Formats: sequence, C-alpha cells, structure tokens
Amino acid sequence: MSNSQAHFLDLFFHPRSVAVVGASRNPQTANYHLVANLVNLKFPGKVYPVNPNAKEIMGLKAYPDVRSIEGDIDLAVISVPANLTLDIVRDCVAKKVKGITITAGGFSETGTAGRSVQDEILRLLRPNGIRAIGPNALSPINTRNNFIVGFMPIQKLPQGKLSLIFQSGLYEPRLQWLVSDYHLYFSKLVDLGNKMDVTEVDALEYLAQDPETGVIAIHTESIAGDARKFLQLLQKTTGEKPVIILKSGRTPAGAKAASSHTGAIIRASDAVFDAAVRQSGAIRVAGLDDFFDLAKVFEYLPLMKKNRIALATLSGGEGVLTTDYCQLNGLALAELTPETKQRLHAIFPPWDIPVNPLDTGVCTQFTAGIDVHIAFLQAMADDPNVDGIAMSLPVSRLLQAEELAKSTGELIKRGKAVVTWPIDPAEARGAIAHLEANRIPVYPSAERAIRALAALYRYHKMREAMS
Amino acid sequence: MSNSQAHFLDLFFHPRSVAVVGASRNPQTANYHLVANLVNLKFPGKVYPVNPNAKEIMGLKAYPDVRSIEGDIDLAVISVPANLTLDIVRDCVAKKVKGITITAGGFSETGTAGRSVQDEILRLLRPNGIRAIGPNALSPINTRNNFIVGFMPIQKLPQGKLSLIFQSGLYEPRLQWLVSDYHLYFSKLVDLGNKMDVTEVDALEYLAQDPETGVIAIHTESIAGDARKFLQLLQKTTGEKPVIILKSGRTPAGAKAASSHTGAIIRASDAVFDAAVRQSGAIRVAGLDDFFDLAKVFEYLPLMKKNRIALATLSGGEGVLTTDYCQLNGLALAELTPETKQRLHAIFPPWDIPVNPLDTGVCTQFTAGIDVHIAFLQAMADDPNVDGIAMSLPVSRLLQAEELAKSTGELIKRGKAVVTWPIDPAEARGAIAHLEANRIPVYPSAERAIRALAALYRYHKMREAMS
Repeated sequence: MSNSQAHFLDLFFHPRSVAVVGASRNPQTANYHLVANLVNLKFPGKVYPVNPNAKEIMGLKAYPDVRSIEGDIDLAVISVPANLTLDIVRDCVAKKVKGITITAGGFSETGTAGRSVQDEILRLLRPNGIRAIGPNALSPINTRNNFIVGFMPIQKLPQGKLSLIFQSGLYEPRLQWLVSDYHLYFSKLVDLGNKMDVTEVDALEYLAQDPETGVIAIHTESIAGDARKFLQLLQKTTGEKPVIILKSGRTPAGAKAASSHTGAIIRASDAVFDAAVRQSGAIRVAGLDDFFDLAKVFEYLPLMKKNRIALATLSGGEGVLTTDYCQLNGLALAELTPETKQRLHAIFPPWDIPVNPLDTGVCTQFTAGIDVHIAFLQAMADDPNVDGIAMSLPVSRLLQAEELAKSTGELIKRGKAVVTWPIDPAEARGAIAHLEANRIPVYPSAERAIRALAALYRYHKMREAMS
Repeated sequence: MSNSQAHFLDLFFHPRSVAVVGASRNPQTANYHLVANLVNLKFPGKVYPVNPNAKEIMGLKAYPDVRSIEGDIDLAVISVPANLTLDIVRDCVAKKVKGITITAGGFSETGTAGRSVQDEILRLLRPNGIRAIGPNALSPINTRNNFIVGFMPIQKLPQGKLSLIFQSGLYEPRLQWLVSDYHLYFSKLVDLGNKMDVTEVDALEYLAQDPETGVIAIHTESIAGDARKFLQLLQKTTGEKPVIILKSGRTPAGAKAASSHTGAIIRASDAVFDAAVRQSGAIRVAGLDDFFDLAKVFEYLPLMKKNRIALATLSGGEGVLTTDYCQLNGLALAELTPETKQRLHAIFPPWDIPVNPLDTGVCTQFTAGIDVHIAFLQAMADDPNVDGIAMSLPVSRLLQAEELAKSTGELIKRGKAVVTWPIDPAEARGAIAHLEANRIPVYPSAERAIRALAALYRYHKMREAMS
C-alpha cells in the first residue's frame, strides 16, 4: 500500500507470517489445500502449519499449537470445528497474533448456542485489538503475493484489477472455474462469512482506496455494519470505480433462508435497499450470471461514452435478435459513415449492401470468413460513429483467434469496447481462451454479451450525471 | 403419419426421393454437406446429386440437371445462387417434382428485384401444385429418417419429441452444438426463410398433429400467413403440447433489421402480438437462452402440478440466492414432512438441522458427498410435499454421474421434476453428458435451472385455467 497510514485490512492481504491451524497432511481433505495452495503458488510470507499430530506438512515444520510457534504471527487462519475454535482463539490472543480468519461454520447461523460462542470470541479479541474475518468465511485472497485461504486446489491466480467481496462460500468452489475457464482477472477476494467483526463497510473502504483494485463486485445477504456509512462509501466509490452488487435474500423466502444461513437479521426491506443502492450509483444485479458477466466487462474493457453499437452476426436472424437485445438494454445501432460502408462493400456480395447489423454469413459466401471479421473490425476502429462492437465469432473452422485478437486489440486501444460470443461454445473453447487471455471478452450468448456491453455505457452515464 | 389424409408437409419430412441441386464434391464448401450428411447418416430415401460438372458425388451418380434424373422426385433441394434459381425451378416444374426447398438468399429481402424473382417462382409453382419452403431457408430435418438439409457436417441426430420452427438460419450453425453439447433431442426442424409459400401456419398445423412431436418451439420475426388462423391454431395446440415462441424484431430497431433480413413487413405492433400470444397459452421468451432452456425442460421432464420445490445447494449462500430465484419465478419452497427431516438427519452434522434449502456443503463435512445427494434425492422422491427438485451438482471429484442419474431417474419416474447445475461446468462436462443422456437436465447456472423448472408449473397452471 502506498498510503502512509495503512488500513487495518492490509494485514489480511499482506501477512508476513501465517499460522494455519488445522492444517492437514491428507490431500483428500479440504484443510490440506490451505497449506498446499500457499506452497504451490509460492506465497512469499512465512507459513506455520499447526497440527498436533504432524511433524511436517508439505515440507514445512508443523507445530502442535499456535503458542509453540517461534516467530511473530500476523495472521492466524483457524480451520477447526466450531467447538474447538474458542480454545484456539485463546491461544492466538496469548500469542499476540494481529489478525485471525475463521473458516468453520456452526456459529451464529445455528442459533443461540452458536451465537454465544461467537460473542465470546469477540469478547476475547476486542480488548486486544485483534481483528477477525468470519466465522464461516474462507478468505482472503490476494493475487499480487499469491496469498490464498482456500479449500480447493488452485493452479494459478492470474492478476487483474477485479476485487470481490463475498458474504459466503459462494465463490470458493467456483474459483478454479472463474480463473481458468471463465477467465476473470482478480486483484483481491474477501469472503466475510458471518461478519462478526470485519464487515462489508471495512472491506469496501479498503478496496475503494486500493490502487490495485479497479472494479469491485459485492455479494451480500445483509449489511452487517453501519448501513448509512456503507451507502456513503458506495456513493463515493462509484465515482471512481464501478461497483456491482448482488444482494440475495431479496424475496421473503430468500430472506428467511439468509437468516438461517449466516444468522443475520434482515433489517431493511429489499425495496429500501434497492433504492439506496441505485442512488449511490452502484450497479445492482439480480443473479450470479450477471454478477460475473459485468465484473468481466468492467475488468476487460474501457467504458463507453456513447451508446452507438455496430453488430456483426453470422446470420440475419441473429442480427435481428441482437438488435432487439441492444435496444432493450439502452443501446442504439450506429449509423455507419459512407466511408465505412464503402470499405465494407469490398467484402460483400454484389447484390447486397452493407448495413448494420452486418450479416457475416452473407459475406462469407464471397470472402474468407476470417477476412470478413478482420475487415469489419478494422472499419469499425476507424468509424467515428461507432462506440462499441458486438460480434458473433466465426464458426470454428474459420476462427483464427490470433488474428482476431490482434484486430480486436487495436480497436480496444482506440477506446472502443467489443464483446463477442461463439456459435458453438464447445468447439470454440481454445479460441475463447486465447481471446480472453488478450482481454477480449467472449460471452456464452449474444444476450449476455449485450447486457455486459450496455453496462459500460450505463455506468459512464451515471457517473457523468452524478459529477 | 397415421392420418389417412396426409398433410402436404409430410412430403417434406418423409421424401422418398430427393434431388440436391448444386451438390458439391468439395468438402470445404457448404454444398458438400447437403449430400454428405444424407449419406453419412444413412437417409433411406433416394438421393440424386445434381451438378453439371460431376459424374459422381459421395458414391452417388450425379446428374447434369433435374430433368435427366430417371426416377420420380418428391423433393428438390435447390442450393444455387439466387440468379440461377429460376431456371432450376422451371426444370423442377417440367420434371413434376412434388415439393422444393430453396436455400439461397438474395430474394425478397434484398428489395424489389429480388422480390419479383420470388414472385415469378411462385407463379410457376402454384398452378402445378408444387409447394415450396424458403427461399433463404435451410430445412427440413427429420430425426426419424435422418433426412437433413444442412450446410454443416452433422455426426448424429438423436431422437426426441422436440420440434422447432425457425424463420432463419439462426439454428443451423448451432445444430451440432445443440445436439452434442447442449443435448437437445429433436423430432423435426423446419427453417421457413422468406416464407414465400409455406408459412408458420402450415408448419404449426403439421407439428400440432404430428404424433412424434411433443414440444414445439417457434422462432419468428413476423407472421407471414393468416395471423388469426395462426393464433387459433396456437391456442388449440397449447392445450396439448407446450409451445415456446421467440419473436424477434420486437423493438423498433429490431423490426427494422428484420425487414431488411427477410423482406417481411411487420404488420402488427409487438404489444398486440404479445397479448395475443399470451392469451393463446403459448410461452413467449425474450431470448435464445430461454428458448433452448425451456425447450429442453419440456422435452426432458414431466409437468409440475404444484410448485413446491426442494433445494439442495453446495453452500448456504447458493441456497439463499436460489431461493430468491424460486420466489421470483413463482415457485415456493416445499415444507418437508417430519419423516423427511428425520431421514435427512442421518446425513447431517449433529449441530445442524435439515432445512429447505439444504446446505450439502455442511453435510459433506460428515457424509461422503455423493451419499448426501443420493440420500436427498431418495427422501425427496418419497416426500408428498415436494413437486420439484433443484440441486447443484457435487464438485467434480465427488460427482458420480451414474449413481446420481439412477436416483434422479427414479424421482422423475414418480412424476417429479428435477433440474441441476454444476459449480464448475468445465470439469463437470463428462458428468453433464451422462446425466443429460438420461434426460436429467443440467443447466449452466442456478438461475437458468430455476427459470426452466418454473415453466413446467406455469404451463400446467395455464392449461388447467384454460380447460
């Protein structure tokens, strides 16, 4: 962190030394991966596995308890069943660890008994100035130093500017997929669990001022901290960084499920929350698909200052459908300049004239498929009437991902946004990986591509209106 | 067909002899696959390739023109550029073919000149009683006899009861993916193109009485035939078979794009169309994702007579989110019987009590992952308060697809609907294929699974209200 006064959460993302309590030698268990991920990903800090039955774990000396560790401990990751957690916390207090994160469930979400243990933990920590994430939380993750608290084996943590705040383990089992197949590029992730101490107010405050975070996505079931402060913070943050919010428990049935999930009491109606979020300039989404789709688009692409879109689709039918999606999402079809039409004429059959949406299927009867797409992208890069491009990818046998990535990259460099989708997502898998490695987003379908593209314009417009 | 009076479209789905005009020997061209698909899939009828420059194509004797073919011809597939089509049609009239289908574009959708050629074709066909699909159409397909008109290589056509009506080539480039990866099971597909003769009224009429069609999905940009008759037919059909409709060109921009796509004039406002469709009992969807998702759910599963859903999700957070999706889609959480809760207790950790939504992640700390899911499915099969089940699949290393398929199959046999989704769609690919081979639908996400599930109940309720 560049600030002279570090935020208290800095410790959680950049611990110099970590005790992993409950570390396991058995690769079949979740607790094995807590240490294995740190070793495999070469986290540069000190790692102390704690396990009374092990001498050594993953080549690291293991300790019977936290107190027997020689060095100072920045962070203790406590991953033992709920009924053992309190004793470990006492050890951590004695050892003067600076922060703890508790993975186990079985606390406030299970009723009065669990809640009183949770309260007891807080009573031990507070007077000693020890901050805590959780319980019922699996976090944090920082891709810059490969610090990760995770139960699943993770092969790599590609770096980006997207940071996530989660209330529960919703993302963790998806992490490998999000990184390796959906191609999100993360900066930091934090799962807050029951939020007995650290809340989304703290997490948002931290990420808002984090220079390595450019986009923030928040999943929450209820605001545990000071709701007014959260909304103020949200409003301030959205002026600089897009913030996406997925609040679940929005229906009565969902709210009831949420209360038995983390033990939180839903204090405000969803309508009140919704209005407040809208006013803050944050982008509320209704589900997980949109959540990740929008996170990706903001991480990958520049904002759109205007809403004029050029479409290229494999069939006329697809063009009509995609035009509908555009208009329904507040996007307009670009009026191509005469020069652009002239240029596109070269790839068109003689009987047809270039229009927007462009039917690439018609063109490919006369010009090689990839040439049609390259010519289209180059013409759109030069057309001053075009702010964004949405294009279905050529069928697999014509899909030369490297050439496409090059032309698309040029276009993005010139400040234009581009989204794509494959006709056959299965066959296009290799090409998708290549394109997304170059930050060219490939969505599973036209509708999802357009919804994401539209967010780039909506966010810009909101920010302009608020400034 | 069992009817004594066969519908005129029967010829198009069961031709005894087919002339393929424009057949190509070059595997790099679309026209190669017109014949290759018929040969590879062992279409039992006679196939006559027509190509003046070839003696033989795919082992079949080729003919210089339609007139030189010795035998009778039920259907001529005309796949030559628009400007050559008229001459071929004259040959077909002379040869007394019974029906034709025209693949080329370049007709009414390109303006006055193209429209007048199209009109001329009609003037030739009508007095001779020759019916025509297209132009600008790639169809039909019948999975029962492997008759297919298609430009892309198709490996197999698994049989099912889903029939599609399309206005344009929107589905054709997706066919391989729809069959092999998305696992739709088709009966018949028909792409109507410019609808110069055969319209959606004819196609719907045919599929409504087709015993091999149980679900109908229609994509259209405008109703070309008698709109009143179409709506009457729709209303009659939805009493027996679910009909899904995707009408594009619903926005002004989309309607404009549609008119330059197939040359159709959009006669009624979208709001009028929408109201009429709703009244008919058909299910209108807004995009292609829903279109295929709902087609799948009706093809795979029994209807739901009530809306009481049991959820099992990998995390509490996922449960809350999925509960929201349920309520937003008109589904309620089932009140499990005491017996069911008793049974579920056996797989639960002692501190927790089974609730709906069930957190399988909590269970798997104490019971092997797959056992949790099997026990859940078996208990739900027996619970009289449960009409439908939505379940996130276990993580890949615990995903024993065969056991899951067996328990889920039992459940479906007992008239209950079940939808699932994977946490990591990439790793679960093999399991998804196995489950869907057994007609257990696996959607890409919880929201899509729930939207599909809800359609099963909504359609039942509509049909009950209308009867």
